[in-house]
Amino acid sequence: MIYFQCDYVEGGHPKILERMMSTNMEQAPGYGNDSYCESAKKRIRTACGKENADVHFLVGGTQTNLTVISSILRPYQGVLTADEGHITCHETGAIEATGHKVLPLSTTDGTITGQQVRDYCREHFTCEICEHTVQPGMVYISFPTESGSLYNKKQLTELSEACHACGIPLYLDGARLGYGMMSPCNDLTLQDISELCDIFYIGGTKCGALFGEAVVIVNESLKKDFRYCIKQRGGMLAKGRLLGIQFDVLFENNLYFGICKQAIDYAFAIRKAFEEKGVQLYGNSQTNQQFPILTNEQLSVFDGKYAYEVWGKYDDTHTIVRFCTSWATTEENVKALLKDIKTL
Amino acid sequence: MIYFQCDYVEGGHPKILERMMSTNMEQAPGYGNDSYCESAKKRIRTACGKENADVHFLVGGTQTNLTVISSILRPYQGVLTADEGHITCHETGAIEATGHKVLPLSTTDGTITGQQVRDYCREHFTCEICEHTVQPGMVYISFPTESGSLYNKKQLTELSEACHACGIPLYLDGARLGYGMMSPCNDLTLQDISELCDIFYIGGTKCGALFGEAVVIVNESLKKDFRYCIKQRGGMLAKGRLLGIQFDVLFENNLYFGICKQAIDYAFAIRKAFEEKGVQLYGNSQTNQQFPILTNEQLSVFDGKYAYEVWGKYDDTHTIVRFCTSWATTEENVKALLKDIKTL
Amino acid sequence: MIYFQCDYVEGGHPKILERMMSTNMEQAPGYGNDSYCESAKKRIRTACGKENADVHFLVGGTQTNLTVISSILRPYQGVLTADEGHITCHETGAIEATGHKVLPLSTTDGTITGQQVRDYCREHFTCEICEHTVQPGMVYISFPTESGSLYNKKQLTELSEACHACGIPLYLDGARLGYGMMSPCNDLTLQDISELCDIFYIGGTKCGALFGEAVVIVNESLKKDFRYCIKQRGGMLAKGRLLGIQFDVLFENNLYFGICKQAIDYAFAIRKAFEEKGVQLYGNSQTNQQFPILTNEQLSVFDGKYAYEVWGKYDDTHTIVRFCTSWATTEENVKALLKDIKTL
Amino acid sequence: MIYFQCDYVEGGHPKILERMMSTNMEQAPGYGNDSYCESAKKRIRTACGKENADVHFLVGGTQTNLTVISSILRPYQGVLTADEGHITCHETGAIEATGHKVLPLSTTDGTITGQQVRDYCREHFTCEICEHTVQPGMVYISFPTESGSLYNKKQLTELSEACHACGIPLYLDGARLGYGMMSPCNDLTLQDISELCDIFYIGGTKCGALFGEAVVIVNESLKKDFRYCIKQRGGMLAKGRLLGIQFDVLFENNLYFGICKQAIDYAFAIRKAFEEKGVQLYGNSQTNQQFPILTNEQLSVFDGKYAYEVWGKYDDTHTIVRFCTSWATTEENVKALLKDIKTL
Repeated sequence: MIYFQCDYVEGGHPKILERMMSTNMEQAPGYGNDSYCESAKKRIRTACGKENADVHFLVGGTQTNLTVISSILRPYQGVLTADEGHITCHETGAIEATGHKVLPLSTTDGTITGQQVRDYCREHFTCEICEHTVQPGMVYISFPTESGSLYNKKQLTELSEACHACGIPLYLDGARLGYGMMSPCNDLTLQDISELCDIFYIGGTKCGALFGEAVVIVNESLKKDFRYCIKQRGGMLAKGRLLGIQFDVLFENNLYFGICKQAIDYAFAIRKAFEEKGVQLYGNSQTNQQFPILTNEQLSVFDGKYAYEVWGKYDDTHTIVRFCTSWATTEENVKALLKDIKTL
Repeated sequence: MIYFQCDYVEGGHPKILERMMSTNMEQAPGYGNDSYCESAKKRIRTACGKENADVHFLVGGTQTNLTVISSILRPYQGVLTADEGHITCHETGAIEATGHKVLPLSTTDGTITGQQVRDYCREHFTCEICEHTVQPGMVYISFPTESGSLYNKKQLTELSEACHACGIPLYLDGARLGYGMMSPCNDLTLQDISELCDIFYIGGTKCGALFGEAVVIVNESLKKDFRYCIKQRGGMLAKGRLLGIQFDVLFENNLYFGICKQAIDYAFAIRKAFEEKGVQLYGNSQTNQQFPILTNEQLSVFDGKYAYEVWGKYDDTHTIVRFCTSWATTEENVKALLKDIKTL
Repeated sequence: MIYFQCDYVEGGHPKILERMMSTNMEQAPGYGNDSYCESAKKRIRTACGKENADVHFLVGGTQTNLTVISSILRPYQGVLTADEGHITCHETGAIEATGHKVLPLSTTDGTITGQQVRDYCREHFTCEICEHTVQPGMVYISFPTESGSLYNKKQLTELSEACHACGIPLYLDGARLGYGMMSPCNDLTLQDISELCDIFYIGGTKCGALFGEAVVIVNESLKKDFRYCIKQRGGMLAKGRLLGIQFDVLFENNLYFGICKQAIDYAFAIRKAFEEKGVQLYGNSQTNQQFPILTNEQLSVFDGKYAYEVWGKYDDTHTIVRFCTSWATTEENVKALLKDIKTL
Repeated sequence: MIYFQCDYVEGGHPKILERMMSTNMEQAPGYGNDSYCESAKKRIRTACGKENADVHFLVGGTQTNLTVISSILRPYQGVLTADEGHITCHETGAIEATGHKVLPLSTTDGTITGQQVRDYCREHFTCEICEHTVQPGMVYISFPTESGSLYNKKQLTELSEACHACGIPLYLDGARLGYGMMSPCNDLTLQDISELCDIFYIGGTKCGALFGEAVVIVNESLKKDFRYCIKQRGGMLAKGRLLGIQFDVLFENNLYFGICKQAIDYAFAIRKAFEEKGVQLYGNSQTNQQFPILTNEQLSVFDGKYAYEVWGKYDDTHTIVRFCTSWATTEENVKALLKDIKTL
C-alpha cells in the first residue's frame, strides 16, 4: 500500500534523526533551556526578520492552539475563525475545554476576510446588550487553510488591518506553513507573515520533523509568561533539546523550505495528471493536498494499491478524495500514481 | 560539567534511536493506530499481567496527569494527594486549570496512608454541609514519591483497600516507576501495582525513552472514551508510532528494568560513599535520587565540576542537595564522583 | 412609557410579596433546607406526577443552564441545541466557560427534531476518528423556543425517543414554561414533559416570581450530588427560603398557570389586532411573545409611547419587533395598545 | 428554638420589603440598568469616597468571589489567601472550577500579613523554574475574617503596600463588612478600605438584605468588561432592580451601619456574659460571631432551646461553639440567652 493519505505517515527527515543520534548522549538542561533550542530560535528569528520575537517549541498542533489561544483571551472572549477551521471541527473541543467559545465565520474557500472581522466586531460592540454575548477577542486562521487554499498578501494585509483596527490580535496556524510558502500560487514571504500576524506557529510535524511546532510571538503584549502557559497545559517537553535539534536542522540551509518545495512539485504533478484526464478538482487547493472528484469506477483504479482519504460525497455518483504529498513522498511512488491516473 | 542534576539530561536509550532510524521511512497510520503501538501495548499488558487493560501512550508527565485526573473526576470533585505531590507543587496548577482542586494530605516521607484517605472521606461525607466543600473523588500517589521513598506492598494494599472502601479510584504516577521497581528496598511487582491500582502510568521520559508515558487503565469503568480526553488535552501525538516504538523497545527483553537497575546500583554506591564519610542523607530515598546534607565547604568540592540540584536549606550551615543517576549515567562519571566524595 | 419589551419589567406577583412579608422574621435554616422549600418541592412533584423527582431551586436562567449542563457532560462532550438556542447566543459563553462546546443544529422555527439528533449521533459515532470531534452528550431545548414556537406532543416524543436511543439525556429549559403550557396551540401537559424529559426547569423569573427557577430531575442517574454543583457554580442562595416561598405560592391553587394564561390571552389579542390590519407576523410564535413585521411609518405609531424590542431587520423597508406580555400586563395597557394598532 | 446559629436565618430588613412592595408594579429595564441601581450605586460611591468607582450588584458570596477572582487572574495565576479562607474551604472548589489554584498562607488568627505576601512573591519570582509553579496573581482577604477577627488600619495598610509592591491587586470579601466596621475594635473607615483595596464587596445577604452583594471596583485596570463576567458566571439578575432597591434602602440614612451596630452590641453583651462566668472565648473574634469554649455540661444548658453552630472540638472535654447575632436579632432573644448564660 502506498500512502497518499496524509502528510504524517513517515517519521522525520533523515538529517534530523542523524543529529539526534549524534548528540544523544550529550548532557543538556531540560525544558528548552539548552543550546540547541537557543540556536534554533536564533535561526527562526532571522528567517522571520524579527530579532525581538519570542520563539517557543511545543509538541503538536492541538496543544499549540489551545495553549496560544487560552493565553490570549480573557474569560468571556472567544476566537473568530472560518467555520471549517481546525479548532472548530477537529480538536475535540480543546478550545472550549479552556473556557472559550469558538466563533465561526462562514467561508466558501477556507479563508475569512477583514470585512467579516470588522462586521462581526462592529455588530458586537454596538449591541446594547453586548455583554450577553461572547466578545470577539482574537482571530485564528490557518495557512494553508483546512482545504488547502492560501491567503494572498492583499488578503492577509486586509485581515491584519481589520484585526488591529478592532484591537484584537491575529494568530496564524502554520501546521503546513512550509507547503503554503512553497506553493507557486503564494506571494507571501515569512517576513510578511511575521509582519502581519501578532503570533503564529511554524509547523514541524507535517513538514519534516518527527514532531514539534515553533510558536513565534511578535506582538510584545502577548509575550509575558508564555512559558507558564506551556507548562500548565502539559506542553513543556522535559527533554526540550529534541525540539531544538529538529528546528535547528530544519532551519539550517533552508532545509525546511527545500523539502516542502519538493512535496508541492509532486502535488502539482498529480493535479495536472488528473486535470489532463478531465477530472475535476474540488475547491482550489494550492498546496500539497489535492482533492480530485472521482466516480466509483475511477476510484477502483486506486483501491488496494494507494491509501487516500475520503473527503466527502460530491454527488450521487462522485466522491471527493484527498491525495496528499509530503517531504517524504518518493519520486517512485509519485511516478506509479501518475501512471495509474493516466489509465482513468 | 558532569550532570547528576536530574534524570533527563541525555536523549534516549541508543536502542530506541536505532529502531526509530531503521523504521523511519515506513508508512504507518497516525494517532497511535499503528503496529508498533499495538506491539508495545501487548508487551505492557503481559508485563502487568492484565490482558484486558487498556494502554495509551502520552508524551509527558504533566500532560498525563491532567488528562487522567480530569477524565475521572466529576466537576465538584478533587484529588487527594501528599502535600508534596508533583501535581500540587510542580505543574503550574495544571489540575486546577481543568477545574479541580488538589486536596493535600500531610506527609513526612512522601507517602500517604489508607487511614488518611478513610479519615478524609469519613469526615467529608459525615459533614452536614458536605456540599460546601470539595468532594474527594480519587487518590493520586507517585511511586517513587517526590522525595524518592517507596510504598511497600503492605502500605499500597492498605491504601488500595481504603480507596475501594471509599468508592474512589487509586491512580499511581510512575514517572520513575522503573527506578522504584529496581530499588533493593522494593517488594512490589508490576503485577502487584496493576492489581492494587485502578490506573497508573509507566514513565518513559525519565527511564530510557526520549519522551513518553504509558497509561495503563485496569479499572473497567475508567476506560470509556479515554482517547477523546487525550485528543482534547493536546496529548495525541500525530506520529504515534514514535511512542509505540519506544515502549516496544523498552519492554523487549526487559530493557526497561535492566537500565533502571544500573541507575539504582550507581545511586546506592553514591549513597554509601556519602555515608562512609559520615554525611547525613535527607529523608529516606530508596531510589535513584539521593539527598546528602552538606556544608558549604563540602559543597565546594563539587562546584564547577558536577551539576546537582539544590533541594533546600537544612540549617544555617547545611544545604540539602540532590544527586540523581539515570539509565544514562556512566561508570566513568560515577567513579569520578565517588573519588571526590572520598575527599570530603 | 408602557413596556411590552420583555416579560421581566415588573417585580413579582403580589401574593409572593405578601407571603415574603408575612414570613420575613421567621427563623429558618439556610441553603434550601427549610420548610418552604420542602412544601414547594412537594407541590411541584405532584404537579409533575413524579413523586420521586428531585427538585432544586436556583436563582436565574443562565445559572441554571450552566449548572445543569456541566453536571451532566463528561469533559469531551458537548450539548446539542437549536442554532438559535439561548445557550448558544445569549449567555456570554457560559457553557463554554465550564469547558463544553455547544453543538448547534439548524432550525427554521426554533425546534429541532429527533431525526436531527439521530443523524448527528450516527454520523459522530460511525466516524473513524470520532475522538477528534466533540461527542454529543445531551440535548438542550427550550419550551417555548427562543422565537416563541412550541414542540407538540408528537415532536417531543420523537425527540425524547431519539435521545434515549442515542443514550443521551434530554434537558428542557422552561424559562417561559408557563406561557408555553397555556398556549391554545399546546397539547403537552406538565406530566408529559416530566415523562419525556430527563431533566427540565420550571421558570419563575419570567412567570410571576421575583426570581427563581425550579430544576426537576426525573432521570435517576442525573440526581447524584447535584447540590455540590449548585454550590460550586455560585447558585446556592443562603436564604433559600426565598425561593421556596415563591414556588410554594406559585404552585398553590395553580396560580402559576392562571397568571400565565392571562398573559397568553393578551398576547393573542395583540396578535389578532395586528393580523386584522394585515400586518405579517414573523415566525409562528404561539406564546406570549409576538413578532409583527412593521414599516418605519407603522413603528412611529408606537415610538415614545410603548417600549418594544427590535428583533431584527426584515427587509429594506420592514423591521421585526417583539411585543411581549407577562403575568403583570394590565388590561388597561393592552387596551391602549390594541387601540393604537387599529390606527395603523 | 431561638437561632444564634448564623446571620442569615431571617429574611430581610422590613424597610427593604416595604420598598419592594411599594415599587413592585413599576416597570423598569432589566439587568441592573434601572434607576434604583443607579441611585444605590451613587450612594455607595459617596459612602466610599470614590466617585469614580464602578459598583456592580451580585446575588451571593460564592458567586461574587468566583466572578471577581476569575475576572482578574490570568490562567496560570492563583489567589493568595489565609488557609482558613472561605474560598479555600467552603465554596466547593468554585475558584478551581474557573481554572485557578487557591494558594493558602498559614494564619493563626485568620489574618495574613504584608510580609507573607512579599515573601511568597519573592520566593516565587526568584525561583529558576518559577513557571513550574502557580504564579501569585492577587490577594484575597475577608473582613471580618472567617473567625471573626479584624485587620486594623496598620495591618491593612501594610498588606496593601505589599500587594502593590508585588504588582498584584488586593481583594477584600466583605460578606460581613457592616459588622466589622461597627466593632468597637475597628479603626478602619469605609473610605480607608476603598483607598487600600483594589476591589472589594459590601455584603448584603448577612447584613440586612434578602440577598445581594455590592462589588466596588476602585482600581481602574480591573473595571473593563466586568459585566460580561457577571453574565457569563450566571450572576446577572434579570430583575436587577431587586438588588438596586435593597442597597438603596441600606445606604439611605446609614441604615446598613445602624443595624449592624446593634448586632455587635448584642454580640459583645453575650461575650461579656460568658467572660463573667469564666468561660474562655476561642480566638479573638471582634465581631458578631462569638466562640465560647464549653463543656458538655455547659452545652446542655443551651440544647433544645438555642440553635448554635458547633465549630470544632477544643479538647477531650470542651467544644468550641459559635453564637452569632445579626441585624435581626431581637432584644428579647438576647435577654433570654444572657439569663441562661448566668446559670452556667
